Amino acid sequence: MKDLDTDTLAPLAQQIFDEIRALSPDTAGVSRPAFSPLETQTLDWLSEFAQAHGLHVEEDAGRNLLFCLPEDAKADSWVLIGSHVDSVPMGGNYDGLAGVAAGLIVLIRAARLGRRFRRPVKCIAMRGEESAWFGACYLGSKMLTGQLPADELSATHKGDNRPLSAHLSDLGIDTAPLAANLPICDLARIEEYLELHIEQGPLLVERNIPAAVVSGIRGNFRHRAIRCIGQAGHSGAVPRAYRHDPVLAFAELMHRLDSTWSHLLQTGQDLVLTSGIVGTDAESHAISRIPDQLLFSLDIRSQEAGVLDQMRSYLRAQMDDIARSRGVRFDTGAEVAVAPALMDPAIIAGLEGAMQTATGDSFTMASGGGHDAAIFAQAGIPSGMVFVRNRNGSHNPDEAMEIEDFLVGTAVLSTYLEEVS
Amino acid sequence: MKDLDTDTLAPLAQQIFDEIRALSPDTAGVSRPAFSPLETQTLDWLSEFAQAHGLHVEEDAGRNLLFCLPEDAKADSWVLIGSHVDSVPMGGNYDGLAGVAAGLIVLIRAARLGRRFRRPVKCIAMRGEESAWFGACYLGSKMLTGQLPADELSATHKGDNRPLSAHLSDLGIDTAPLAANLPICDLARIEEYLELHIEQGPLLVERNIPAAVVSGIRGNFRHRAIRCIGQAGHSGAVPRAYRHDPVLAFAELMHRLDSTWSHLLQTGQDLVLTSGIVGTDAESHAISRIPDQLLFSLDIRSQEAGVLDQMRSYLRAQMDDIARSRGVRFDTGAEVAVAPALMDPAIIAGLEGAMQTATGDSFTMASGGGHDAAIFAQAGIPSGMVFVRNRNGSHNPDEAMEIEDFLVGTAVLSTYLEEVS
Repeated sequence: MKDLDTDTLAPLAQQIFDEIRALSPDTAGVSRPAFSPLETQTLDWLSEFAQAHGLHVEEDAGRNLLFCLPEDAKADSWVLIGSHVDSVPMGGNYDGLAGVAAGLIVLIRAARLGRRFRRPVKCIAMRGEESAWFGACYLGSKMLTGQLPADELSATHKGDNRPLSAHLSDLGIDTAPLAANLPICDLARIEEYLELHIEQGPLLVERNIPAAVVSGIRGNFRHRAIRCIGQAGHSGAVPRAYRHDPVLAFAELMHRLDSTWSHLLQTGQDLVLTSGIVGTDAESHAISRIPDQLLFSLDIRSQEAGVLDQMRSYLRAQMDDIARSRGVRFDTGAEVAVAPALMDPAIIAGLEGAMQTATGDSFTMASGGGHDAAIFAQAGIPSGMVFVRNRNGSHNPDEAMEIEDFLVGTAVLSTYLEEVS
Repeated sequence: MKDLDTDTLAPLAQQIFDEIRALSPDTAGVSRPAFSPLETQTLDWLSEFAQAHGLHVEEDAGRNLLFCLPEDAKADSWVLIGSHVDSVPMGGNYDGLAGVAAGLIVLIRAARLGRRFRRPVKCIAMRGEESAWFGACYLGSKMLTGQLPADELSATHKGDNRPLSAHLSDLGIDTAPLAANLPICDLARIEEYLELHIEQGPLLVERNIPAAVVSGIRGNFRHRAIRCIGQAGHSGAVPRAYRHDPVLAFAELMHRLDSTWSHLLQTGQDLVLTSGIVGTDAESHAISRIPDQLLFSLDIRSQEAGVLDQMRSYLRAQMDDIARSRGVRFDTGAEVAVAPALMDPAIIAGLEGAMQTATGDSFTMASGGGHDAAIFAQAGIPSGMVFVRNRNGSHNPDEAMEIEDFLVGTAVLSTYLEEVS
């Protein structure tokens, strides 16, 4: 690990995180609103920092920043590496920023050590990934790749109620190509997209592994509010055989989903499922009343489209079965679905090899949260991701990534770009 | 069934229900507040009705009314038969009133047909059974039997916030013996207590049986708000093995309780259980967030004290087991318990024989709701109950008892009092 040059790189990484944190304080954690002046200030700081370390800096049509070694400034095509600089309100400092910092460190390290990448590399610091501001996510990467839906271009800001298009115009960004779903960069010149991100779950902490290669970004299907409709009754006076109890129906459904989840994991398939919102009706519920209905949400995720299809059928079949046996009805409402985004198999293998070389070991896992990498993958650009161990999840002030782990993640990327790619 | 004299008795019963319903309309259903002038008016109407049909009427120290055949007015002891005249707000017309009407019909029928009871019989029309008004139930029968707790005597009315004691004083009821927990009637003179009541569940409707003998009134233990405490997390990013999901823990607990319920029923034991209130925290829950906690109520009832003890241990053991396996914690809060009140075995057998004689068949079931009969049983007075088939439960405007079924119930009581008792 001598190659990592930890003593040199750690203070640089720390400086990026510390100074940008200081630019964007909130009552707790940090706040870097998408397409805001504060986001621009963050990019300005990064630009100065990059130039101070000998990197070439340019701005693209989405007013994102691109950094590279001076000799790669005129390259015809390149590997793109980066992430976003915006954050949720009262968020942590690492969600997004760590990926930009990683790209910069990879470039600075190569410059310092006189290493050369096997292909030109550009680092991108993107705007507008978090859905907290305009209600939709991955705005920056959707704009770059021509995938921004019309309703998202007119989505209003939570704070000032002005549409995204107005905020973009304020920044001098031309919205005409966006409205026409045209990419605002030349996608053919991007050979690969790589992104380092903090893990948003506890797997690496629990397994005591500093970083991981990401196999894919889980897709999902969701129901915001499934209504299980039964029949109200006296809690003491309705025998089991004559109940239409929506709570027991829900319990049976969740128990079956949970058992199937456990089974699928044992067969090596990828799945997570969550009912995050559950409730009887506060207006009418009572201890001694069988409730007439229960509302609950369901969020089922997998990086395998086949598993999602399988779970969709299974859910429907179990609801039908429980509805029949318990005399209740499930009104599922609309389903919202996002397709999984698999990372490129060759990049996964390359990153695994690089991780083996850099750390002596390799670990691969699925991503539960969505990332800009999914948008690039959907645009047909071979993509890959590296996760870094992080405590306490993301989107909160308690995000806790160790610089040492961050440098393991960047070492994987450096090794990949210098020796494998 | 010629003895029932349906053509004569049905119009009388209908008159009681119709005229008292007309006295006490609410925006929906009826409202006869406990210890109110409207309750007094109801008793006044009953008094005139009883006298018009040749019955003797007297008032007791709780300002309840007692009716009997003139020749039983000076009896040393008697079988007491009746129920309460108050109702919940926007309640049905039959909960309580049916039991008073049954006592009157039994007396009027005996007078008309020249039948004599094997023992003197008095019918009681009681005040104040519903908890809707002062938050506590069975106030009238607790007062009669010296079982009114001090906090219930000072419990305030939901409407005017004045204590029960003030409302009783308004009626001229002496509260001194109540405060001293002294019975305000001579319990030694009550040989038995009998009560007819509408069934509050669907069993008789589902089984197509007009009436039933009640074996006992289920006791219960309840937890108002059990908190299942887990750990919040990203719905997509926390693998199953590292979850502390309070919703799945709740589902597993309810599923286990439900399975055990099914098993106990198959072994002939009495049980009902309900989680009427369930909810994640509205302030923090979200579709894509594993909730940190779930609140739920639990109401477990049986007429067998042993089954309640068994379920209490089972619940504790299952919570411990699930807490261990899922890394959650159950904070159960306080338990509130009410002991079951078994009806007197000799009275049950007598009523079953009377039902067999009167209808050619007999059916016995547990009562899920509480009744004044439980208070008399707890005061050491052998008690019995008859249920009458009723649609749509009780405590709502949709209570639906057929007069024909009501007369089957009264026939069981008449036969018991004339031929068995």
